[in-house]
Amino acid sequence: MPEESPIADGQDTAREKAAEFEDRWRRTLADLDNLRKRFSKDLGRGRLASRNEAMAAWLPVLDNLELALSHAEEDTNPVMDGVRAVRDQAVDVLARLGYPRQDEVGVPFDPHRHEVVGTADDPDRPDGVVISVVRPGYGEDETQLRPAAVVVNRRG
Amino acid sequence: MPEESPIADGQDTAREKAAEFEDRWRRTLADLDNLRKRFSKDLGRGRLASRNEAMAAWLPVLDNLELALSHAEEDTNPVMDGVRAVRDQAVDVLARLGYPRQDEVGVPFDPHRHEVVGTADDPDRPDGVVISVVRPGYGEDETQLRPAAVVVNRRG
Repeated sequence: MPEESPIADGQDTAREKAAEFEDRWRRTLADLDNLRKRFSKDLGRGRLASRNEAMAAWLPVLDNLELALSHAEEDTNPVMDGVRAVRDQAVDVLARLGYPRQDEVGVPFDPHRHEVVGTADDPDRPDGVVISVVRPGYGEDETQLRPAAVVVNRRG
Repeated sequence: MPEESPIADGQDTAREKAAEFEDRWRRTLADLDNLRKRFSKDLGRGRLASRNEAMAAWLPVLDNLELALSHAEEDTNPVMDGVRAVRDQAVDVLARLGYPRQDEVGVPFDPHRHEVVGTADDPDRPDGVVISVVRPGYGEDETQLRPAAVVVNRRG
């Protein structure tokens, strides 16, 4: 084995240390960068999840308001008109915050937006279209609070 | 000036480099730690702010529902009873998610929870107590969506 002087030894050790710390520094920088990216993604997701949860809590309230109103469709007294305006206002709040009401009929069945709760056999309508909406859905894609519960045409 | 050998020079340079990279590494580690701490705090704050915003959007709906019901206090038909139940359900949703209704009378005026919209001069009640609530508040401390609008006794 070749002999090395103590001075050269010391120099090599310092160089190794420098390389080692440079490597650690670069890895930690990369960790920092990854954490920043994950941070901003998680922050957005956390905000959305939190808002979805808060909005979903109101759907049973709106459902019950509509149920009450369904028993008073002929009722034209001003108080009932006021209650109907409140129902419309609630639907507007949902739409404005990114949760549009989903209650279209005549559209093709879409498993992402519709939940089938019944079928019909109507020869005058195309196969696979939504015949009626039993319970409206709210939101779409990542803001979907629930799909619309629908009756679909299944021509036998 | 003392002369230095090229070998010692090289050794010093390597040592300086090692010290420099160690310093950078330690600083970046500290940044990473700070970012982690800020992250978990910001995530919690972001979720809360997002939920507060979503819940606040429903207050005008509830206010209008109560306004409509105030015109039908004598009305005992089942539909109106159903609408009253919906109002109670809405207040429950708010309370359950951390936004209790604030509508107590007889309590001392508190600038954090009350907004004075009128004064009374009632010799039979203590000075500074809430005489009536014109519009209820919701939430408390960091979940406060709005203070209660109140009439306060100011014995003159």
